This record gives sequence, C-alpha cells and structure tokens, in this order.
Amino acid sequence: MSKGMFISLEGPDGAGKSSVLEALIPILETKGQAFITTREPGGVAVAEKIRDIILDPKHTEIDEKTELLLYIASRRQHLVERIVPALNRGELVLVDRFIDSSVAYQGFGRGLKVADIDWLNNFATDGLKPDLTLYFDIEVEEGLARIAKSKERGADRLDRESVEWHQRVREGYLSILEKEPNRVRKIDASQPLEKVVADTLAVLAEHVESLR
Amino acid sequence: MSKGMFISLEGPDGAGKSSVLEALIPILETKGQAFITTREPGGVAVAEKIRDIILDPKHTEIDEKTELLLYIASRRQHLVERIVPALNRGELVLVDRFIDSSVAYQGFGRGLKVADIDWLNNFATDGLKPDLTLYFDIEVEEGLARIAKSKERGADRLDRESVEWHQRVREGYLSILEKEPNRVRKIDASQPLEKVVADTLAVLAEHVESLR
Repeated sequence: MSKGMFISLEGPDGAGKSSVLEALIPILETKGQAFITTREPGGVAVAEKIRDIILDPKHTEIDEKTELLLYIASRRQHLVERIVPALNRGELVLVDRFIDSSVAYQGFGRGLKVADIDWLNNFATDGLKPDLTLYFDIEVEEGLARIAKSKERGADRLDRESVEWHQRVREGYLSILEKEPNRVRKIDASQPLEKVVADTLAVLAEHVESLR
Repeated sequence: MSKGMFISLEGPDGAGKSSVLEALIPILETKGQAFITTREPGGVAVAEKIRDIILDPKHTEIDEKTELLLYIASRRQHLVERIVPALNRGELVLVDRFIDSSVAYQGFGRGLKVADIDWLNNFATDGLKPDLTLYFDIEVEEGLARIAKSKERGADRLDRESVEWHQRVREGYLSILEKEPNRVRKIDASQPLEKVVADTLAVLAEHVESLR
C-alpha cells in the first residue's frame, strides 16, 4: 500500500492550475516534505509518445473512443512509472490533471458515457483515487480569455473546440464536485493568482500535516 | 447496420495466417465478391503510430495494462476507419487478428483478466463481433520453428517471450473455440499450405454464398 499522499489538480483550460503548481513549488520546498509535481504524460517516454498522437493537430480523424483509450493508456503508464513509486517512497504527489479530466472532457465534453470512463479509469489505476482533488473553478469565458492572452501556448487540437464544449466540461467538473464532496475541493480560480495560491495552501494544510 | 460479412483470422505466431490470406486473394478475386483484407493497424495513420509504440523493442518498460489499452485503441481506430466503412459498402472483410488476439495474448499470455479484456473489446467495437473467426491451430514448437526459419522477420518485442508464454496463448485460443463454437472454426495449420488454404476456402464457402 502507498504511504504518501496523492493530490490531483483539476479544472477547465485557463483556470491557472499550472501557474498555481509552479508557485507552490518554492513554498513546499521550505516545508521539508518530500514531494513531486507532475502531469500526464510526465516525462514518461511511452506516455509522451501517446500524448503526441492525441495532440497532433493533423489527427482530425481520431475517433472519440480512440482518444479516450489513449488518454487512459497514457494515464496507466504515468501512474506505474512515476506516481506509484513516489507514493511508495512516502512522498506527496501533486499531479496536474488525472481521472476527473477524462470524465469532464471525454464524458461531458464529447458525450461518451461516464460509467464507461469510470470503468476505464478504475482499470488503469487499479482503483487508486487521489486522496484529495483541488478543482480550480472559473467561468468558461474568463478561462478562454486567459488562454487567448497567453502567447506562450501553441494551438493544439483541443483549443479548437467551441465555447459550448468548454461549458459542458465545466458542468462535468461541477457534477464530480457534487458527487464526491469528500475528495474534491473547489477553489475560486477567478481570483488573483496570489489569492488562489493562498486558498490552495490553506486546503492543502487541512489535509497534509507537514504543511501546517 | 452493416451489410457485409466480417471474418477474422486468428492463431499463434507461425500458424501461417498471413500466408493463407495472401493465397486467398487471387482466388477471391475470381469470385466477383467485393472484399478487403486487412490487419491492425491496417495502414490507418493513428493506429500505425500506436503500433509503433507497442512494438518498439526499446519500450521494455511498457506496463501490461498500458500495452492492452494501446492494442484496444488501435483496434478502435482501425475498425472505425477501415472495417465498418467496408462492411457498410456490403463487402467481405478479412482481418488478420482481432478481438481474440487480445484475449489470447494479453489475457492468457500475460495474465490480465479475460472479463476485463472482453469489456474493453466490447467498448472498442460497440459490440461488433466477427460473423466468423478462422482459428489456425498449430503446436507451439512447430509455430516457433517456422518463425525461426523465416529470415524476413525482424525480432520484435513479442518474439522474445518464452515457449510457456506461447503455450498459454494457444490455450487461450482453444478456450475461445470451446466457448464460442458457432463463431470460431478451427483449421489445422500444421498441414501443407495448399491444404490449409483449401480447408479455409471450404469453411468460407459454408458461410459466404458468393464463394460457393
């Protein structure tokens, strides 16, 4: 059994998860708690190659179920190679996107059955769920406006989806939040970054003794 | 609903499926029945890239569940892009390996749960099963000896498995044959190629009116 603590960060595009994670790193480093931050595919060679297939804008012919299966395969490999070893070393694992992204994006976004996605997630993770999930909530229009402003991001296949699609994704997250209130905590991501980071730290401190 | 006929060819390595399929092509061409022969990934760009990941001998770190999910993803894309359109055109589709390969190789071979593989196959195919499956049966040692003699094949990741592993794969096929006698027909692949082709044609003629 794993001895570490497993925390996922979730939310629609533009919610600022990655910026929060970056801001957390120097703070966590002062706490003496061993940790890793990662995101699928997380530098895992096999998972990186899978992600290249999914995100290649040339692959407009990818079927929705194929896309889902590839995300799940990438998740499995990243879990086995990076997350589980860190948990077994007793570390705090912070992962940017995990099982809930598939439910929100492929389930609510693309209309695949949530029960099927739950089955696939469970198969890929051997039933391992995050101990805590931080859901960064933001209005769709605001999230998309942030993405549009960011010049660093190249357009990938997902950026070409409609506002309605992103709206469904957000509804997906809100539905998970409602279904699993003990695991998932909502953070208001429309606030200035410093405030979002402070809220995140406060929730983390509730769950991780070494961060108090 | 599909109007064509869907036939899969299955069997352990070295059973000679591909040679039989090649020998069938000129014969089928004389019959006036529109047909395609294919095998996963079947020239489907996304599926080809998935297969490259699975078969790369450098990827020794691929987890068994990741491998299975990648095969299933490749199957889905090949089905959607090649098999279903041909069936909808009313054609005869002959595919070299399909759902039963996952049960035999990843289930019986690698020890993953057959019920899980059945679920994944069903998810990827929307429940579409071949109308007929030709199972080319051969003793493991004989099949492996044939592979060893063939100088054309480069060693891929699967060729490095043990004899015991290939034995379990064959047991997997025999178990499917026992479970689904109406779909699966056994052909003695230890015979000379001409005889195997003749047996195959005889079984095909039983099922496909235009080949009589």
